[in-house]
Amino acid sequence: MRPVLVETVAALRTRVAEARGRGATVGFVPTMGALHEGHARLIEAARRDCGALVVSIFVNPLQFDRADDLARYPRALDRDVEMCRGLGVDLVFSPPVTEMYPAPAACTVDPGRLADHLCGRFRPGHFRGVATVVLKLLNIVQPDTASFGEKDAQQLAIVRRLVTEFNVPVAIAGVPTVREADGLALSSRNARLTPAERALAPSLYRALRAAADAIEAGETDAGAAARDAAARLPADPLMRLEYLDIVDPDEVQPVREIGGPVLVAGALWVGGTRLIDNVRCEPPAGAREAARARRSPS
Amino acid sequence: MRPVLVETVAALRTRVAEARGRGATVGFVPTMGALHEGHARLIEAARRDCGALVVSIFVNPLQFDRADDLARYPRALDRDVEMCRGLGVDLVFSPPVTEMYPAPAACTVDPGRLADHLCGRFRPGHFRGVATVVLKLLNIVQPDTASFGEKDAQQLAIVRRLVTEFNVPVAIAGVPTVREADGLALSSRNARLTPAERALAPSLYRALRAAADAIEAGETDAGAAARDAAARLPADPLMRLEYLDIVDPDEVQPVREIGGPVLVAGALWVGGTRLIDNVRCEPPAGAREAARARRSPS
Repeated sequence: MRPVLVETVAALRTRVAEARGRGATVGFVPTMGALHEGHARLIEAARRDCGALVVSIFVNPLQFDRADDLARYPRALDRDVEMCRGLGVDLVFSPPVTEMYPAPAACTVDPGRLADHLCGRFRPGHFRGVATVVLKLLNIVQPDTASFGEKDAQQLAIVRRLVTEFNVPVAIAGVPTVREADGLALSSRNARLTPAERALAPSLYRALRAAADAIEAGETDAGAAARDAAARLPADPLMRLEYLDIVDPDEVQPVREIGGPVLVAGALWVGGTRLIDNVRCEPPAGAREAARARRSPS
Repeated sequence: MRPVLVETVAALRTRVAEARGRGATVGFVPTMGALHEGHARLIEAARRDCGALVVSIFVNPLQFDRADDLARYPRALDRDVEMCRGLGVDLVFSPPVTEMYPAPAACTVDPGRLADHLCGRFRPGHFRGVATVVLKLLNIVQPDTASFGEKDAQQLAIVRRLVTEFNVPVAIAGVPTVREADGLALSSRNARLTPAERALAPSLYRALRAAADAIEAGETDAGAAARDAAARLPADPLMRLEYLDIVDPDEVQPVREIGGPVLVAGALWVGGTRLIDNVRCEPPAGAREAARARRSPS
């Protein structure tokens, strides 16, 4: 009989209240559906830590900056529910758009400077839409813990921040990115790649990894690390690098001299598909101290 | 022993959880302190409907568009706590600024078009600050009901909307404005008025009431009603009308032809003090139908 599929806020709240009444802690994994192995690992990780697990499947129009991307976003509800069943999910919340946005939104969550760089620079309004729907979903489900993939690093940074700054009583768990054998990060958008595009797609991760390797070997000049990494991407008319940047993981602001943990993040267009990925790394202790000494005049 | 004064989010949550544990429903009245008779009526109304009542006293820097207004905003914590004691308040939450904003805010609530008119037009960022702190306070206290004065009509419209749009599980209660015998709406800022300014201050309410009377007598031309009302303000060098507008009460957008309930709202500078007030009214049935017929070509 599991999972129960609910489509309204009221029904979801009733079911969650029943679970709470049984003394269950509530875990939550928000998704846009088209579930893949990366989601499965996210759901498995969340499953281990709660008594009742809610997965939402909602393709949020507010976070799409391009109508064609929204129209083409893959949808596979029956298959998604089947996968949730196999993973022990208790409740699948799949509201229609009119349930989430009965009227045109007036109030939105503005993520401020956290959306100034990386994807935020290229997708105006995207993170406002993400932050707004995540806040709504957290208020609807009221979970103890909500889990997000580290693949969407800027999203995760924004969700962590909005929860802290708005005093939302929930713990946020980041779950590591799941990769194909050749390094490509799993993504619902990978399904759109042609075989030729699929062959090129892992070059994004390889470039990010090259920058991370250089940083872990002592490179503290973020600009040099990013340029060298971008130069490793094969020249191919099917590919266009949107950005490859090195930022501070919490503030999502560009770093020049690397003196602590950083996020090496990139977005690559392969044909008509935009792929993102990131790697977190930090310089060895010696390089960090040397960088700090260079920054400090004393 | 009542009320208990708490200054941290953690202490407040512990106390609210204790009240919940006793089965009490929780009411909440957010204030900026300097409590007056208007707050007292607000607190009394809230007191009747809950088992445990929380009043917050927090002068929110994020909602002040002018540093001098923030610096001059009246503060009277000891007297406020004393008044709360007399009114049966269970918990007074009076956090320092660093407890509410431990770091510079990145995420804020953008009230969108709801802040385009009335005070929002003249106080850039004000309602963003209001909406953000109200969301924080609702998440901290997690009350069943939160009560707001109707005097701040645009604030109330924005709070109602953000709660609906963000699915915050709380009921919002609007409490009627309390007035002096001469009509002046009670406000913490009234304490700043000199005797000469105080004598002029009720003219704002008189003007708003004149517009409401005209509308209730059948005037459906909002522009005419507003102009006639503004013309009733005495010409005095101490006074400057900032706006006197007629808007739809929920969307807070200007109305031209009045066909339903409206808000007649104004802001008046009296000396160095800015006073606001509003009256809700609606045209008689006949005038509404005539206005509808004029609007509709069929």
